Amino acid sequence: MSRKIITIFSFFVLLSFDLQAEDGHDLWLRGKGTNSVNVICSKKSPTLSIAMQELRQGWQGKTNEKIELVVKSDKAIKGDGFRIGKNRIQANTDIGILYGVYELMRRQQTGENIYEEVCNPSYERRILNHWDNLDGTIERGYAGSSIFWRKGKDSLTVTYTDKQLWQEYARANASIGINGSVLNNVNASPAILTADYLKKTKEIADVLRPYGIRTYLSVNFASPQVIGGLKTSDPLNSEVAQWWKNKVKEIYSLIPDFGGFLVKANSEGQPGPQDFGRTHADGANMLADALSPFGGMVMWRAFVYNPSDEDRAKQAYSEFMPLDGQFRDNVIIQVKNGPIDFQPREPFSPLFGAMKKTSVMPELQITQEYLGQSVHLVYLATMWEEFLKSDTYQEGKGSTVACCTDGSLFPQKHTAIAGVSNIGSDVNWCGHPFAQSNWYAFGRLAWNNSLSSEQIADEWIKLTFSDNSGESEIDVENSIYSPDWQVNFLQPVKQMMLNSREAAVNYMMPLGLHHIFAADHHYGPGPWWAPTGVRKDWTPPYYHKADSIGIGFDRTATGSNAVSQYQEPLQSMFSNSQTCPDIYLLWFHHLPWNFIMKDGQTLWDELCYHYDKGVRQVREFQKTWDQVQRYVDSERFSQVQTKLREQCMNAQVWKDACLLYFRQFSKMPFPNDMERPVNNLEDLIKKDEQSRKIK
Amino acid sequence: MSRKIITIFSFFVLLSFDLQAEDGHDLWLRGKGTNSVNVICSKKSPTLSIAMQELRQGWQGKTNEKIELVVKSDKAIKGDGFRIGKNRIQANTDIGILYGVYELMRRQQTGENIYEEVCNPSYERRILNHWDNLDGTIERGYAGSSIFWRKGKDSLTVTYTDKQLWQEYARANASIGINGSVLNNVNASPAILTADYLKKTKEIADVLRPYGIRTYLSVNFASPQVIGGLKTSDPLNSEVAQWWKNKVKEIYSLIPDFGGFLVKANSEGQPGPQDFGRTHADGANMLADALSPFGGMVMWRAFVYNPSDEDRAKQAYSEFMPLDGQFRDNVIIQVKNGPIDFQPREPFSPLFGAMKKTSVMPELQITQEYLGQSVHLVYLATMWEEFLKSDTYQEGKGSTVACCTDGSLFPQKHTAIAGVSNIGSDVNWCGHPFAQSNWYAFGRLAWNNSLSSEQIADEWIKLTFSDNSGESEIDVENSIYSPDWQVNFLQPVKQMMLNSREAAVNYMMPLGLHHIFAADHHYGPGPWWAPTGVRKDWTPPYYHKADSIGIGFDRTATGSNAVSQYQEPLQSMFSNSQTCPDIYLLWFHHLPWNFIMKDGQTLWDELCYHYDKGVRQVREFQKTWDQVQRYVDSERFSQVQTKLREQCMNAQVWKDACLLYFRQFSKMPFPNDMERPVNNLEDLIKKDEQSRKIK
Repeated sequence: MSRKIITIFSFFVLLSFDLQAEDGHDLWLRGKGTNSVNVICSKKSPTLSIAMQELRQGWQGKTNEKIELVVKSDKAIKGDGFRIGKNRIQANTDIGILYGVYELMRRQQTGENIYEEVCNPSYERRILNHWDNLDGTIERGYAGSSIFWRKGKDSLTVTYTDKQLWQEYARANASIGINGSVLNNVNASPAILTADYLKKTKEIADVLRPYGIRTYLSVNFASPQVIGGLKTSDPLNSEVAQWWKNKVKEIYSLIPDFGGFLVKANSEGQPGPQDFGRTHADGANMLADALSPFGGMVMWRAFVYNPSDEDRAKQAYSEFMPLDGQFRDNVIIQVKNGPIDFQPREPFSPLFGAMKKTSVMPELQITQEYLGQSVHLVYLATMWEEFLKSDTYQEGKGSTVACCTDGSLFPQKHTAIAGVSNIGSDVNWCGHPFAQSNWYAFGRLAWNNSLSSEQIADEWIKLTFSDNSGESEIDVENSIYSPDWQVNFLQPVKQMMLNSREAAVNYMMPLGLHHIFAADHHYGPGPWWAPTGVRKDWTPPYYHKADSIGIGFDRTATGSNAVSQYQEPLQSMFSNSQTCPDIYLLWFHHLPWNFIMKDGQTLWDELCYHYDKGVRQVREFQKTWDQVQRYVDSERFSQVQTKLREQCMNAQVWKDACLLYFRQFSKMPFPNDMERPVNNLEDLIKKDEQSRKIK
Repeated sequence: MSRKIITIFSFFVLLSFDLQAEDGHDLWLRGKGTNSVNVICSKKSPTLSIAMQELRQGWQGKTNEKIELVVKSDKAIKGDGFRIGKNRIQANTDIGILYGVYELMRRQQTGENIYEEVCNPSYERRILNHWDNLDGTIERGYAGSSIFWRKGKDSLTVTYTDKQLWQEYARANASIGINGSVLNNVNASPAILTADYLKKTKEIADVLRPYGIRTYLSVNFASPQVIGGLKTSDPLNSEVAQWWKNKVKEIYSLIPDFGGFLVKANSEGQPGPQDFGRTHADGANMLADALSPFGGMVMWRAFVYNPSDEDRAKQAYSEFMPLDGQFRDNVIIQVKNGPIDFQPREPFSPLFGAMKKTSVMPELQITQEYLGQSVHLVYLATMWEEFLKSDTYQEGKGSTVACCTDGSLFPQKHTAIAGVSNIGSDVNWCGHPFAQSNWYAFGRLAWNNSLSSEQIADEWIKLTFSDNSGESEIDVENSIYSPDWQVNFLQPVKQMMLNSREAAVNYMMPLGLHHIFAADHHYGPGPWWAPTGVRKDWTPPYYHKADSIGIGFDRTATGSNAVSQYQEPLQSMFSNSQTCPDIYLLWFHHLPWNFIMKDGQTLWDELCYHYDKGVRQVREFQKTWDQVQRYVDSERFSQVQTKLREQCMNAQVWKDACLLYFRQFSKMPFPNDMERPVNNLEDLIKKDEQSRKIK
């Protein structure tokens, strides 16, 4: 069923709990209140109204209990944080109250203890980046088309249905603490800053505002030329600066709480200050100066690389480190978690913790561009946890990426974290029922970067898969799930989620391999893809460097020396093949096929076993899922079952393609106990080529 | 490399042992003589010349040993049989000598003992049926195009290369005792009997003759009308009879040892005597009378069925049993091994042993129409052994199909056995290197129907895979293969072959399921295929009859009662689901999904485990093959490896398609320890439809 049909039947989002639950549209917001509650709130605001309504509709505490909502300044409470108790929520801001309400209701629904506690957010800005194009397509979107933009002559009209969906979207985000949305693709069309689009942006912002979500836009650095009619977009040109000032003023007149700009400049063909001989700092600061009077931010992306001789993994650091300290206070450098590009596994980008005089924010990718898109079940929180807990050692042991970015280690003026959204017009928002867990997990980690991925999975499963059988699985009185459900559903499904990312790494790119994807679509394997005329750093052989001697990218001092961008003791640890963690081995080293691994096996055998294990892991997921059938509605059950089959087949393709390709170089036999490939390499290469032709 | 290129380089077949061996063109005839031999033969003939030349080229006995070839009548020797000894071969006929020579050389090469022994053939006529069309295509051929016929303006010219290939073909057949070839498809073009085609047939026959191979033709029963210009083909019409007499005379004037006609009449749309209100006997006898003066035979096929209400499995018996005793002496009824159509497993056709007053010959299918074509490694001798050793009980216990057809039980005037050829223009003749073993096995079983499939596999592997590494694996002096080779190559490869047919049954149609193939191409699964307007007996649901209650074809007294066509105690044994062998269970019974099998499992679980096991077995074949790599030349090694991969993928498709389809009816869960499907049913159905559209 399409989303539109659903929304026609629904009346108003806050009253729409009775929507049929099986299509996944209700996300983790499925809890129904059964008891009445007595809500007391001395203040009035749209946000507080929502808070009160949520309580009345979702209350699962004792019936007729009293709950007090108190907006009152408290030094223990930071920003949008709150103080929560069984019968009282206190916050500095209205939105803090709403967050507290969602927290209280989550605890009621998941059976967590509720005691008096202050909850403060790890990051001031918790932002979704939508790579939505103005024609309604979504770059790297796998769940339908944009919920904000569309093609055609009614592209700028806003319907009741649009607003309803935006409100649902806002509510879902607010429920997990997300407070910002960049509404358009970082590969930004200049048209976004034209009056028509700004008018529509205002309409979106108006819907999002009561849920505490500020609106941001991605801007094209050449906008002054393209839509402003100027001869240049040079950031040091006063006309250009003035053009941006005017534009910013125009925006704020429409959207007084506008969040700011996200900029992809001089990256993958996008215009930027370097086109005019200026630096990233020159460009960012010019925009920052325009935004500053209104409290707006510039999020300037560090995702830059050129087809030069320098190792791509080094380029962001090389380019931005010299600029450390040159950025305005309201500029924050947005850095992807790894030095390359959202791979199944990367070490953290060395910019984290290194830029000590500049605000730096992590950019995570929720949409599974490189992790099976909307087909593979891959829970990303384990990856993000691994990343956030990575120790940069920049200020001694314990200088985790989390600490380096959330303000606890450096006095950066602003803190933020961004996630590239996986949201689209599909009825279940994210394509794969389990992809919702990644949206959820991003929000939860953005609020609290010390949460474990297990805790988040636990919450999400309870909120998403319970209470949809008609009979409640929750013992509302005691807020405890049945032991049967916990043992036979929660535990195995959680374990599957927790294993899923490592499984993907195993069948795609184990031992530090990276970016050996099929070109363009980044879905299947393409370790062979290297046509003449294509930028070398866009081809897999650039990254795996398989040859008759061995495999892997030498980033030690004998190679690109990217390792030098890391603080000691990481530099030494990564540099030595004996101490480099297996998970990053081929990221940092080109090693012989018969290199002896820590467990005594050859590198070749180890590689084989990893790929083989990946396939087996997916097969186990299939069994796990089949065995929980009776706990899941048939619609979501069969969706996931169907996708797992495809995932299993894809995992086999990954294994076969990579092992058969690499074996051409290793010339070593497969280990006897490894299951053999079932695809032939030539067929896979042919199919890969055909798939590109079709596109 | 194409066959043609090969033959350009070769000089003369008997001198062509030096052909590069890796392409498989040399079949099982790879043995090279290293020692000289002193051949004594008092008589001269083209056949004896070949015998002498074979000995001189292939001799692996002691050097300078004497061997005597003696053509002399001996009552202990029957037909083309021979008496063999270390230094003497005696036979009633020249071709008997040649068979003796091949036997001696086989024993030398395989290290078998050579002692004095009489070897007589089980069947008088050991015939290949070529389903070759006159345009060069081959019905159910998976190894290139016809070696006899071709399209185009030079279709009737005979080149040196043609003759060379026919000679290679004849030699290969003679080496395993095959003595007849039906050169054209049973769905016969009337054109075969025109002067031009008969002239070409004569040229083929001339090449085949020295190798003891008689030429036969398939004829179209309507030939008198189509090419004779008569108004009818009624067999009782005297003009028609005369036309055939004239035609036969014409043929024998060209080919004095012409073997006779093979006829597919009133079957699958072919014309026949029933078109004129006559019986099969009327038709066959009329042709027999024309052939009789020249010693020619009519092989009349019993493969008949109509889209009537009668169970297809019963129809051949119903139609032919009443005619028993009405056929001329030189008519032999050619009956497919099973009552349906060359399925992966069928019980024997009840006509065997039942027609006591008529000569009956088995028709086996060497080409793997229903057994994975030229992709799957399936050694068919185990199936044929199972068939030949099936006890019909027609003359009490021990009345095996072999005894019922080879003249030992009934005094039938002629005995014969036919195999539908898998030979084509592919350089390795049969498409799959292991498909050669089926050609080999057919010849060996036709010669000696009591040979075990294991013995045949043993011989074939030794002849086909030894001595091709440059260094001989054979200790010629002692005719013993190295223990390492025997343990690490011969044994595992033989085991793989011996398991291969059961594996195919497991992943395609276990427990007596049959004919659930995709329409037309009979390669992949199509249990769902049943479009309106298609004859029901051409659709899989006709055969599997899966419904909410259960699965299988009830052929007991409560159903079609096909079981009544079997002699007791088979009738009773097959009728009772408790005593019916598992392998035929769903052939004879429609049973509930939760029927309890002999091992205590439900039918559904058992079905699942069989399919699952089939896939696992192919995976094991892959491992086996990889592990014998060092014993095999790279060309054949990688051919087989590549095909095994495809087979494994196909096995998975079979399993997934059948289990997912049947599960729609059983509604039972897959057993917990079964590996889950990885294909989705809808995708498989869509692909199946597309594959038919392409055709």
